[in-house]
Amino acid sequence: MTELNGQVVRVRLDFAYDGTDYAGWGIQPGLRTIQGVMEAGLARIVRFGEPPRVIVAGRTDAGVHARGQVAHVDIDVRTWERMPGHSRRTPGQSLVRRLNGVLPADINVVTAEIAAPGFDARFSALGRRYAYRVCDDVRLRDPLTRRYVLWHDPLDVDALSVASSALTGLRDFAPFCRPRDGATTIRELTEFSWERVRSGPDTGLVVAKVEADAFCHSMVRSLVGAVLAVGKGRRDSAWLADVVATQGRSHAVKVALAHGLTLEEVRYPADEDLALRARVTRDKRSLD
Amino acid sequence: MTELNGQVVRVRLDFAYDGTDYAGWGIQPGLRTIQGVMEAGLARIVRFGEPPRVIVAGRTDAGVHARGQVAHVDIDVRTWERMPGHSRRTPGQSLVRRLNGVLPADINVVTAEIAAPGFDARFSALGRRYAYRVCDDVRLRDPLTRRYVLWHDPLDVDALSVASSALTGLRDFAPFCRPRDGATTIRELTEFSWERVRSGPDTGLVVAKVEADAFCHSMVRSLVGAVLAVGKGRRDSAWLADVVATQGRSHAVKVALAHGLTLEEVRYPADEDLALRARVTRDKRSLD
Repeated sequence: MTELNGQVVRVRLDFAYDGTDYAGWGIQPGLRTIQGVMEAGLARIVRFGEPPRVIVAGRTDAGVHARGQVAHVDIDVRTWERMPGHSRRTPGQSLVRRLNGVLPADINVVTAEIAAPGFDARFSALGRRYAYRVCDDVRLRDPLTRRYVLWHDPLDVDALSVASSALTGLRDFAPFCRPRDGATTIRELTEFSWERVRSGPDTGLVVAKVEADAFCHSMVRSLVGAVLAVGKGRRDSAWLADVVATQGRSHAVKVALAHGLTLEEVRYPADEDLALRARVTRDKRSLD
Repeated sequence: MTELNGQVVRVRLDFAYDGTDYAGWGIQPGLRTIQGVMEAGLARIVRFGEPPRVIVAGRTDAGVHARGQVAHVDIDVRTWERMPGHSRRTPGQSLVRRLNGVLPADINVVTAEIAAPGFDARFSALGRRYAYRVCDDVRLRDPLTRRYVLWHDPLDVDALSVASSALTGLRDFAPFCRPRDGATTIRELTEFSWERVRSGPDTGLVVAKVEADAFCHSMVRSLVGAVLAVGKGRRDSAWLADVVATQGRSHAVKVALAHGLTLEEVRYPADEDLALRARVTRDKRSLD
């Protein structure tokens, strides 16, 4: 909590970034991280009692991108109200404009608004949806989209679909997670599907949709890596069943490269359920 | 012409590139150019009597991209035939694979095939089509596509359309061209239209389609820059008429930034007309 006159407003930020040139979300000494760059940007335009702290919904790994990322930051209420200066903008519009003015072009803040009571970008979230984009046709490889599309050998989309549907549901995803002491690896994978896209922005690509209540460290990329091995015919469903049955982390899975992965959307409950959801999540992960 | 045993085949290359990190197509001493990188790549995998010479359809400026670029290169016939080695690939498939293996990821060769008799990538072309991509809505700015989309203030697409339609046809485009001694600036601008895209890969963007038999140096970006000034309301149609009536280059036009521009397609006549078309083009540009 920042304190200048004691009163703060919690601001929800919706933003997008190209993760290519970052060592991931979380601050690491000496490395360029999204959190580090955003907090430094905020500190340049907003007066804080102490350095600002940005709490994010999805802590993306190095090289992973985001289109629908959500975070919150607490800002002194008077600083917030004075944000527009003499302009006719709202404080939120003004913050977006000023923040994008100091941030590099590979981060874009879309909106900044006062969050509903009880909102916590991380703990109120109901689910995170990722997309993993693959081009499996040499003739469709586009150098302009190569920073967020994996170039791969030809894939069997039916095989990808069968394999990924065997992984959905509420289960212990320990075989697919980089372990962390005391942290649960039980998650609910609500969707894991593949499509050869026929229209819209991803036409011609093979795209995975991966959604869960939350993900452990490197879980999305491990799931995608395991299924890609089946989709290219190098592994079969029996192998995948063995992986799922592994005690602890499986070392048979090759984690998919980061640059194909984009956090597309974070889902939240209706405003009146935000605080309850945050309490439930905190309890469930109390060991984290 | 390369000569090893005297006989060469002319190979047509179709390829794409992200021009961000290049000083344009044409070789310049000490600079990284697409021609330079491609010729060096070819020299690593194909035996030439003298350094290979790649002739391109559209000599793109620094920072301009290409999706449907076309070039030709003459290769010794025996070298061509031996390209597949012990593989079952055709010589063309083999060349594509080996060339992409040595080229950086921001250039992708799509196909390599023996060209029809009379084919000249530059002089046989009937027309070049470019797209200029603009995002004029802060909320739609996508860091992942920022390398090929211009971020701009809100635009009036109707005003863009009216302005650009006044520029089409066969005329002297000298006001929009960087002058070159003795070179004609008469061109036929067959299409110059704008659309706020509602479906497909460019959904949400404002995209210009610019097609002509050929373009002078910096012509596309000057045309786009002039019309953008009208579309954002800074200039009007009377101003544009003055620009068109300028003798020689107009200094009132602000050339649009390079990164929004992509060469999308090069059109050629039917095979039997390739040689004739090349002769006609050469004659017309004999002053070049």
